[in-house]
Amino acid sequence: MHIIDKDIQSLLRALQQTLSQEIPITEHLGIAVEGYDGKCLILIAPLERNMNHKKTAFGGSLNALLTLTGWGLLWLLLKEHGLEAEIVIQESVISYLLPVTRDFSACCRQPGPAAIAAFENTLRKKGKARLELYAEIYEAGALATTFKGRYVALLHQ
Amino acid sequence: MHIIDKDIQSLLRALQQTLSQEIPITEHLGIAVEGYDGKCLILIAPLERNMNHKKTAFGGSLNALLTLTGWGLLWLLLKEHGLEAEIVIQESVISYLLPVTRDFSACCRQPGPAAIAAFENTLRKKGKARLELYAEIYEAGALATTFKGRYVALLHQ
Repeated sequence: MHIIDKDIQSLLRALQQTLSQEIPITEHLGIAVEGYDGKCLILIAPLERNMNHKKTAFGGSLNALLTLTGWGLLWLLLKEHGLEAEIVIQESVISYLLPVTRDFSACCRQPGPAAIAAFENTLRKKGKARLELYAEIYEAGALATTFKGRYVALLHQ
Repeated sequence: MHIIDKDIQSLLRALQQTLSQEIPITEHLGIAVEGYDGKCLILIAPLERNMNHKKTAFGGSLNALLTLTGWGLLWLLLKEHGLEAEIVIQESVISYLLPVTRDFSACCRQPGPAAIAAFENTLRKKGKARLELYAEIYEAGALATTFKGRYVALLHQ
C-alpha cells in the first residue's frame, strides 16, 4: 500500500502524539518528529537541554533519539502495511564518531523491499518478527553517530 | 592507591554534583549516585519519569543510566589513580533482555587489575587510553539489561 502526503502528515502527527504521551521523557529531551518522505524518518532534538560536560550532545541523548527514530520508522512501516503490533527494541550498537555541537537530527531509512517483505511475512505467519534498522546523525555533512538497532514486532492478537 | 570510606563518600558527592551540573538531563531522568564499594559503582533512576508506552522503562533511559554508570566508574578510577583526564564514550552495545518494571539501578564493575594497569600505563605514556567496561541492570535477581561500553580517557595537558 502506498500512502499519500496527506496520510503521511496525519501519521506523523499521530507518531508525535504517541511519543509525547506515552514516553514522557521525550518531552524533557525535546524530541520532535521532523519529517518522513516515505523512505527516511527524521527526528530532532535541541542541543541545549541535552548537553554534556563538554558542551556537546550527551551520548545518552543521542542514543535515545536514534532508538526512537528506529522505533518510529517501524511504527510507520506497520501502519503502512495495515498491521497492529507492539514494538520493542532488543539490542543496539552505537558508535560515537564525532562530537555533536548543535541541535541534532537522526535519520532512519527504510530497509530494502526484500527485508520488508520477509519481515511482513514472518509477522503475519508467526505473530512475531525481527527487523534490523540503521540510523545516523550527521553534523555539517559529516557522519557523527551511527546506530544499528534490532527491533521486535509482536502482532496484537 | 587505596581510598578509604571517607574519601569514597566525598568522591561520590563530587560525582553526583558533576552529573547534575554538567549533564542537566540527568536531573530530568532522576539519575542519582547510589554507592561504590571500591569495585562496583551503582547509579539509580526512578521508573515513573522514564516509562515507555508499555509502562516499563524506556530503552533510552536504561541506556543513559548504563552509559553514565560506566562513565562514572572510569571517573572514579582516574581519581583513585590521581589522573586528570577527560572521558568520552566511543561505542556501546546494549541488550534489552527483560522489561524493567520498577525503579532501576545499574552496576558497573571495575575491570581486573591487569586491565586497569594496562590502561593506566597507556594513559600515562600516550596521553590517551581506551577501556572496555561492562554494566548491568538486574530486576528481582534476573539480568534485565546488559551493556558494554568502550570509553576513551584523554589526559589533561
